[in-house]
Amino acid sequence: MDKDFVDELNELLGDRFSDSESVRSNYSKGEDIFDPVLPLGVAFPNTTEEISEILKICNNFKIPVVPFGAGTSLEGQVVGIKEGISISLENLNKIIEVNKDDFDCRVQASVTRIQLNNYLKDQGVFFPIDPGADASIGGMCATSASGTMAVRYGTMRTNVLGFTIVLPTGEIIKTGGRSKKTSSGYNLTGLFIGSEGTLGIITEIQLRLNPIPESIISGICHFKSLDDAVNSAKEIIQFGVPIARIELLNADQMEISINFSNLSDLQVSPTLFFEFHGTEKGNIESIENCKEISEGNDGFKFKWSKDFKERNKLWKARHDVYWSVKALKANARVYATDACVPITNLAECIRFAEKEIQDLSLKAPIIGHVGDGNFHVTVLYDPQNKEDFKIIRNFSDKLVKKTLDLGGTVTGEHGIGLNKKEYLLLEHPTSLNLMKSLKKTIDPNNIMNPGKIFD
Amino acid sequence: MDKDFVDELNELLGDRFSDSESVRSNYSKGEDIFDPVLPLGVAFPNTTEEISEILKICNNFKIPVVPFGAGTSLEGQVVGIKEGISISLENLNKIIEVNKDDFDCRVQASVTRIQLNNYLKDQGVFFPIDPGADASIGGMCATSASGTMAVRYGTMRTNVLGFTIVLPTGEIIKTGGRSKKTSSGYNLTGLFIGSEGTLGIITEIQLRLNPIPESIISGICHFKSLDDAVNSAKEIIQFGVPIARIELLNADQMEISINFSNLSDLQVSPTLFFEFHGTEKGNIESIENCKEISEGNDGFKFKWSKDFKERNKLWKARHDVYWSVKALKANARVYATDACVPITNLAECIRFAEKEIQDLSLKAPIIGHVGDGNFHVTVLYDPQNKEDFKIIRNFSDKLVKKTLDLGGTVTGEHGIGLNKKEYLLLEHPTSLNLMKSLKKTIDPNNIMNPGKIFD
Repeated sequence: MDKDFVDELNELLGDRFSDSESVRSNYSKGEDIFDPVLPLGVAFPNTTEEISEILKICNNFKIPVVPFGAGTSLEGQVVGIKEGISISLENLNKIIEVNKDDFDCRVQASVTRIQLNNYLKDQGVFFPIDPGADASIGGMCATSASGTMAVRYGTMRTNVLGFTIVLPTGEIIKTGGRSKKTSSGYNLTGLFIGSEGTLGIITEIQLRLNPIPESIISGICHFKSLDDAVNSAKEIIQFGVPIARIELLNADQMEISINFSNLSDLQVSPTLFFEFHGTEKGNIESIENCKEISEGNDGFKFKWSKDFKERNKLWKARHDVYWSVKALKANARVYATDACVPITNLAECIRFAEKEIQDLSLKAPIIGHVGDGNFHVTVLYDPQNKEDFKIIRNFSDKLVKKTLDLGGTVTGEHGIGLNKKEYLLLEHPTSLNLMKSLKKTIDPNNIMNPGKIFD
Repeated sequence: MDKDFVDELNELLGDRFSDSESVRSNYSKGEDIFDPVLPLGVAFPNTTEEISEILKICNNFKIPVVPFGAGTSLEGQVVGIKEGISISLENLNKIIEVNKDDFDCRVQASVTRIQLNNYLKDQGVFFPIDPGADASIGGMCATSASGTMAVRYGTMRTNVLGFTIVLPTGEIIKTGGRSKKTSSGYNLTGLFIGSEGTLGIITEIQLRLNPIPESIISGICHFKSLDDAVNSAKEIIQFGVPIARIELLNADQMEISINFSNLSDLQVSPTLFFEFHGTEKGNIESIENCKEISEGNDGFKFKWSKDFKERNKLWKARHDVYWSVKALKANARVYATDACVPITNLAECIRFAEKEIQDLSLKAPIIGHVGDGNFHVTVLYDPQNKEDFKIIRNFSDKLVKKTLDLGGTVTGEHGIGLNKKEYLLLEHPTSLNLMKSLKKTIDPNNIMNPGKIFD
């Protein structure tokens, strides 16, 4: 490391800049499939202004920077850069203000969604985006995350009102504002959502909130075949039932979940999980519509509840998916695909994935945010076994091609990171150049998370 | 006009490039407050590829271009440029495909929202963004339009899935896709929404659609004071009533509407107009909630109907607002403000506007998309009277400052155009430079609608 560079960082941050191996190792990767890469050091700024100073120094010395949130990204977005530093945003963890009557709040980047919802829960409002992991809000913005409730509440793109951002030059800008809508100049907020740390560092976020619904009802239904389950989801959406979540687990995933959590009253078969937010009357009407549609597709054992404990029990198989898969094999990595297609093509796309998996004799449970046409095949593999990885990557390549043929996107919610750069080129051959020009304009020295999204 | 430039356009377009005065005059302004500016000529391309060729020629000769849709913009976005040409997109008026079961469609830029909804109406789906005017979909994208149904269905930002765009260099790019969500690279679609023709020409749009609701119920309620009406709207939103539209007319506007349409059963008082989309049971529950909240704020004569004809009658005052105001004075222009604030500050902001208007002895009806915190004061004035305009502009300046003090935006849905460039600087002092850099990167010769949004 350049001595002058280190001196400047030390002067600015004191012991909040560390080059110890254990610290660097803690910030070397996320929940992804990549080998860890230790950065030269890790900075722990306390404020937007400090981040501005750090970026000025890095830009001056042309040292690459990886912004690090909660480390839950799946595609390599926070893998370290050998010749660079990582900036942990963990000290930016304050909820700045909550305007509950306006349904908005402002948070620092490392506030996590569970932290925020715990803070909000007595105020009658909540933040609805739930990607599963307890991600940081800043990270969720950077990845354009969504998850189980997007079918009702939209994605980060619909729920972020504005930012404070530090540009690679150290310049601090504010975008958007507090109003529910605006046509005031270019949508810079939207440009930074999904930019995966390559354009600047998001330090504050103005978020939309929602009223906690008067009534929540959860339900589940088993199906004889995957097609029946997917078709039910499709019909429920087409019928306009105002559903808050509609999740699919395939038979493999159900088996894993049932074993992991001892769910003796569930059956190993494709299963839909429902949730409704509204008035009790409205929810009951909705659940009746869902039941009718599901049973029309040979759904069976339809169960529902409005009781908090019962609801959690019904959804336990879905909630524990990540842990149930992780527990299958020690030290294994999880390769998660992220296809998202128009809903009429969803059954064909999932069928294709299941067949490919069977042909390869892989164990690959599937979960789907089926209301949005998005599903994940989660393939476990041993990182030491390079042949296994090749087979999985080959499967992923095929699924990506099929997804694009079906009018879909290579990533519904996990982003591109290091893992899908080739796929981005397949999906956006005509507009990748423009993305690169924007990157070059905003970050002329290419210090912000270089090598992520594209080279 | 440079002879070589004209020759090249003539060779490309034949008589679809016109420099006749009457044609140039037809494309010299929109529904705005500006004096017409006749361009050098008007091009009428038939295809994306022709637009690409035109932009190559213009870029080569550094001739400015104004893209022209339906001409309904309010802030001067399509005012001609003396040394430039206008490109009318009116021949790009085809609905390319409708995927009703996926709730999406693809249209050319000049398809208007009424044309689209007429086409869709037998297919059980509709496009919900309703800015009032029969704007072109491309223009609505360029302005980031919204209107009465945004409270339920979002704005153009939530309803556009992707674009075909011709960049100033003539390069044709495709952005986004058909899937309901994506995290695949930078959100270029979002960047072009609201770019007001300054970054390129949108030629095709992939749109989200919605199921036509099983039941629609409309209602209206009078109030003793504006505050009571606004507070009712606020409480209805805060209560989470799933409302599709909630519109305010102040007493001045009610008087104008009643006179214009002979609505003897309505009263001159602040009035809320409601609309609900859903199941009949759900809608009736919602209307009962609205009635209770409204009457709790001294609302009176609450009426509602589920019958199509009755519903139109109830809403007639709201539907005819634009024409009723226009009819007040021949040859007058309408100056429409476009403040949008957090909903708890809405009453204060409207009260401020009403008081300022009274102090100036102006006739200025107010309509509000109050569920979103957005309202318009529509001030009529004689364009010959420069003193009047100064007074109005002074009022507008004050309202803008108040709006920003209240955490709002200077434009909820009309955009910046020529009219609000100073206001944009007040709202976004830290990020205007970045907007300008993006513009310079994408349009280095500054040929795309120069002088709009910023100089």
